[in-house]
Amino acid sequence: MKYCEMSKEQLQQELVQLQKEFEDLKARGLKLNMARGKPGKEQLDIVSDLLTILADPAECVDSGIDCRNYGELSGIPCAKKYFAELLDVKEDEVYVGGNASLTLMFDTITKAYTHGLLHSERPWCKEEKVKWLCPAPGYDRHFAITGCYGFEMITIPMTADGPDMDMVEELVKDPTVKGIWCVPKYSNPDGIIYSTETINRITNLKPAAPDFLVMWDNAYIIHEFEGEYVPFPDMISLCREAGNPDMVFEFASTSKVTLPGAGVAVMASSKENIKYMESILTVQTIGYDKLNQLRHVKYLKDKKTTLELMKKHADVLRPKFHAVLDALDSEIAPLGIAEWKRPKGGYFVSLNAMPGTAKRTLALAKEAGVVMTGAGATFPYGKDPQDSNIRIAPSLPPVAELKEAIAVLCICLRLAAVEKLLAD
Amino acid sequence: MKYCEMSKEQLQQELVQLQKEFEDLKARGLKLNMARGKPGKEQLDIVSDLLTILADPAECVDSGIDCRNYGELSGIPCAKKYFAELLDVKEDEVYVGGNASLTLMFDTITKAYTHGLLHSERPWCKEEKVKWLCPAPGYDRHFAITGCYGFEMITIPMTADGPDMDMVEELVKDPTVKGIWCVPKYSNPDGIIYSTETINRITNLKPAAPDFLVMWDNAYIIHEFEGEYVPFPDMISLCREAGNPDMVFEFASTSKVTLPGAGVAVMASSKENIKYMESILTVQTIGYDKLNQLRHVKYLKDKKTTLELMKKHADVLRPKFHAVLDALDSEIAPLGIAEWKRPKGGYFVSLNAMPGTAKRTLALAKEAGVVMTGAGATFPYGKDPQDSNIRIAPSLPPVAELKEAIAVLCICLRLAAVEKLLAD
Repeated sequence: MKYCEMSKEQLQQELVQLQKEFEDLKARGLKLNMARGKPGKEQLDIVSDLLTILADPAECVDSGIDCRNYGELSGIPCAKKYFAELLDVKEDEVYVGGNASLTLMFDTITKAYTHGLLHSERPWCKEEKVKWLCPAPGYDRHFAITGCYGFEMITIPMTADGPDMDMVEELVKDPTVKGIWCVPKYSNPDGIIYSTETINRITNLKPAAPDFLVMWDNAYIIHEFEGEYVPFPDMISLCREAGNPDMVFEFASTSKVTLPGAGVAVMASSKENIKYMESILTVQTIGYDKLNQLRHVKYLKDKKTTLELMKKHADVLRPKFHAVLDALDSEIAPLGIAEWKRPKGGYFVSLNAMPGTAKRTLALAKEAGVVMTGAGATFPYGKDPQDSNIRIAPSLPPVAELKEAIAVLCICLRLAAVEKLLAD
Repeated sequence: MKYCEMSKEQLQQELVQLQKEFEDLKARGLKLNMARGKPGKEQLDIVSDLLTILADPAECVDSGIDCRNYGELSGIPCAKKYFAELLDVKEDEVYVGGNASLTLMFDTITKAYTHGLLHSERPWCKEEKVKWLCPAPGYDRHFAITGCYGFEMITIPMTADGPDMDMVEELVKDPTVKGIWCVPKYSNPDGIIYSTETINRITNLKPAAPDFLVMWDNAYIIHEFEGEYVPFPDMISLCREAGNPDMVFEFASTSKVTLPGAGVAVMASSKENIKYMESILTVQTIGYDKLNQLRHVKYLKDKKTTLELMKKHADVLRPKFHAVLDALDSEIAPLGIAEWKRPKGGYFVSLNAMPGTAKRTLALAKEAGVVMTGAGATFPYGKDPQDSNIRIAPSLPPVAELKEAIAVLCICLRLAAVEKLLAD
């Protein structure tokens, strides 16, 4: 029976029952974590051969470059070739970085702030106001970057096809609107793949700002856990064809392909953009860790081999996502107190709880020993206007623990909903 | 016979002879490089065991932290401990980064520019003017950083004891003077060790700017190639004791201990400074490559073991420095056309040619196939007011090639000097 159809007495009865269950849960002293999109130990163990694949100094050479020494600001040739194939872009559109695409993203926005982009009239720090479009629910670490530079972040609602493009097209007429965050494939947290029409409308934007920046975080470009690999268009070419060649920077990494703490990150953009960025990056570094780049290329080889590896990750992740979705289907769906997406890739299940109950749900979960991404984190400024969205990250705990954690979450969702209905 | 004592006829004769030698050199089609402080292949080969020291996933753990996964913004505990010993600072004064101390330096100045430092009244990008003290000859990549933010760089002459402190003490009374570059041990390129008095005067500076920043680049902290390790005071404690606890950031790396392209960088400062920087760094990254940190600690173990390794590097470097100094002593000293330092550590020989001949000398060297650091590079804006300083980097070529290269340089120094004397 749906909670909204229950009488006050039925809800009271439910409350008492749930409070008892909740106290029992607390007494178990659980310590579970569904907070971040961290791969679990089983996934890390899949790639152990990476550790020793570069064993001999004689192997540390690529195209005559000794990767142990200084140099190669934009990455070693074989790494550029590898990532060019993976992203379906040209080698001279690729910049291979360190262990974190987040850092490449932060540094890109920072350079816009301190120096301006290729088509900027001035550095953004000299602008009176910078506004930024934030499709939400979205990735909290994205919002943290634009937040830390004081940009005014404007929430763009997400639809089943990606960001609300009517709103985006309208807002980019404002020259102080300088950019947009996008996770185009298996968006964080909704797991949505931007539709062809959405992508087409983004590439054809006519922003008033000459230096409007599409931050295309393709974090989950090959991260299917259900079904086959879904090809995805090359945004760099599409923007060029649409007459916006320098509007987009694309980002990806091997953090969830090999090792999250020790992977290789990449960015892609027009040749001109890369050249411009290198003119500042050359002041910041002599080059990133080329041995780790080489180690990765030797291990991952090419796109085909990499996709085979992703199947192994999928085999680990699939049961975890099923555990979450099955629990929600059986425990929550009949009660009508939440809705959730059924992603086929990425690292999250995005759940919308009864409005006004997300914070309370997660506070209860924490009390019962289950740590989740903070309520509101998926919105700019950490403020979910509906207090509804909850990001579930099933990847880290082993399935048995995950089942316990999601069971706790279900009780908390119910308890928060009953409390809310009784209070209204 | 000294060139300055030669008659015009003698100089003419010398010119003809040198021009012939120079043409012979050119005809040999040499391709030699003394441009950058890059370790040579023999040095890289010393540390080959580093490649495979972390072979087993079970070893990828430090203090219960799986170093393969996300996290640990400020570095893993064992790396903090290792670098704390190396720098003689406390573990909570240490921030372990990626593969480049240059990046940590760039990022520190960038954060001052975008957000301000702990005691800043406003971000430096909001200041009307920022001035910066540049002891010179100095490191071109330092000047590139402060240059790229448009700071007005003021050249501070170097003395045998370090920067001219009378001038520094006077200039810091100007509140727009925000900082100073220092390479305190085996300064780049002079190879000078700052004297106790210089260090004392720096720590006791009373800058008008509340956020005056001493960039203490201890790049050559353990990099003796001649004689025993020279202990060096802990600048973080000294500044604290002098009542300037948050004035200094110290930087170092293993770039010239293990591998230049794949080492580990570190920064140290007051606990409060590190905490403040982490508040911004946490937006930039989830953490640096912890596997490489762990790999390094397993390999380098502790300061004692590291100093033993540095002896092996010294054994490779010493003959190279001797080759340079011997050639200068025999070919140039009798002519009285240049002076140079005799460093016991670091990576450079700093030579002052006859004023007005450095550019010409290096142009000639280039013509003869010997690439050197560009003339003027050791001064702010790449402009040596005397056109005199030449930075010789003997580390990269094997000794035989180096001897050829330095012989070329000697001819070029002589040719440029004769040309100058004849033109005057």
